[in-house]
Amino acid sequence: MDYQSFGKKFEDISGITITPFKEGSKEIDWNGVKENVKFLINRGVNVLVPCGNTSEFYALTLEEVKEEIRYVVECANKRATVLAGVGYSVATAIELGNYAKDVGADCIMIHMPVHPFMTDDGVVDYFKSIIENVDLPAVIYFKNPAISDRVLEELSSLERLVAVKYAINDLPRFARTVHSIPAHHNITWVCGIAEKWAPFFFHAGARGFTSGLVNLYPEKSLELLAALKKNDETKVWSVWNEVLPFENLREKYNSGVNVAIVKEGMRQIGLNPGVTREPVSPLSAEDKAAVRTLIHQWNLDIPKQPQ
Amino acid sequence: MDYQSFGKKFEDISGITITPFKEGSKEIDWNGVKENVKFLINRGVNVLVPCGNTSEFYALTLEEVKEEIRYVVECANKRATVLAGVGYSVATAIELGNYAKDVGADCIMIHMPVHPFMTDDGVVDYFKSIIENVDLPAVIYFKNPAISDRVLEELSSLERLVAVKYAINDLPRFARTVHSIPAHHNITWVCGIAEKWAPFFFHAGARGFTSGLVNLYPEKSLELLAALKKNDETKVWSVWNEVLPFENLREKYNSGVNVAIVKEGMRQIGLNPGVTREPVSPLSAEDKAAVRTLIHQWNLDIPKQPQ
Repeated sequence: MDYQSFGKKFEDISGITITPFKEGSKEIDWNGVKENVKFLINRGVNVLVPCGNTSEFYALTLEEVKEEIRYVVECANKRATVLAGVGYSVATAIELGNYAKDVGADCIMIHMPVHPFMTDDGVVDYFKSIIENVDLPAVIYFKNPAISDRVLEELSSLERLVAVKYAINDLPRFARTVHSIPAHHNITWVCGIAEKWAPFFFHAGARGFTSGLVNLYPEKSLELLAALKKNDETKVWSVWNEVLPFENLREKYNSGVNVAIVKEGMRQIGLNPGVTREPVSPLSAEDKAAVRTLIHQWNLDIPKQPQ
Repeated sequence: MDYQSFGKKFEDISGITITPFKEGSKEIDWNGVKENVKFLINRGVNVLVPCGNTSEFYALTLEEVKEEIRYVVECANKRATVLAGVGYSVATAIELGNYAKDVGADCIMIHMPVHPFMTDDGVVDYFKSIIENVDLPAVIYFKNPAISDRVLEELSSLERLVAVKYAINDLPRFARTVHSIPAHHNITWVCGIAEKWAPFFFHAGARGFTSGLVNLYPEKSLELLAALKKNDETKVWSVWNEVLPFENLREKYNSGVNVAIVKEGMRQIGLNPGVTREPVSPLSAEDKAAVRTLIHQWNLDIPKQPQ
């Protein structure tokens, strides 16, 4: 495994796949998973992340996590890099990671621990134990502002750690950490909070960003990525202004509707995202209307059939 | 099942059991679990909570969660009420809850969902789905300040919901919620943030409190409970002042050492708590010394053997 160059794959959009749940039973609609993967790949998304937060990872059983990873790998059929989300206890994350390897995932993304008590050194040990016991390139999803970035500095020398998905919106802190870690560790920095924050993170050293928006409007995310890579500031800000209202809508109710908004957008353009699971509730009519307005502004409305 | 009176069991101390992990392998030391349960019961603790936060619930695999519940029930042997912690996705929590019932646990404590996205209505659905699908009295562990107490108001009419372990240190908010829920719903309110906050919560309507301190100094916790029940203010504040430095120590490093401090205290008085698991790291020499000082002040030092 050439870990040194592997991280370059994340100088791209990491598309977090949604998990479609059937209305009523709330079971996973596996056909919907397949359609979602096909849509993303056909529209030019190169990195798929099953079992990220937009996938409602924490609403899945461990069996479902495994099957989602396995099935996304199967559907992607080597046409995209599959970055499989794993987490929970160290032993559970290792089990999920080894399963991901067995079924052919390319790499793992380790969620931040959900434990209410953690120390910097304990978090180093947490990630290190998982990385050392899963023989795949690893990406850390770093999102707890109470934990020091020293954790990343200490882990950066691990060969398997190829990228960090940084999800704390503190730009000076992020920039300082990027600068403090030697380039020869080959860490690819990824903005972990999507299009809204991507321009700022790129300016501070990120080379890729995560996206939930890709599930309905990948063209726009790819346009942003291209503009960021070319340093085309005019284009960056015009695309950014186009997607901002959607990303802001996802932040309503303390981000409680984050995934519900994405799924509603998908539904309105004719895709089959299903519903969300608890602890997320269905959208209000008002929020659905707000999505409708944006879909219309983006000209993504489904053409009306003649009566 | 007489749900109406069941909640009265929580007008008491809910003793959160620690999970002893072996030095090195970090496997669960089942003999240590047995000793811990024996210690708690012998010292007068009536309610045991395996798989709470002090049990390092989130550092356990699901198989370990199940075995910990089963084994604590076996060790308690009906000499204490066993309140089994369950959580994660709805389906996982139901599976754990039904397992708890099968092995003889008396009731379940449902952890707050760990999902990064949640809405008030979604949290109602989350708890409701679990409560409706596990045929045991249920206690909600309510600790996310971003979620409205309206959730508790809506769930309070469920017959199986017998108590709420309230873990948000906003007293006016707590008092208002206690007052707003009709008495005939028979919800027992429990201070979910232990001895330090118990006097304030009792004043506002709590009738019991959770405790990690019981794992080493149950006499002190029981003294506080008795004083609170008798409204013996002098005693309440004298005990409170005795335990406060210990509870404050547990809050150091954003509570990262919460359980490590308890385990260190247990170790210093000759119990066998083992070590903590990731993402918690071992205590510094300085923090161990701080525990030593308190143990000495409490006169819990192990008598020195003659040389």
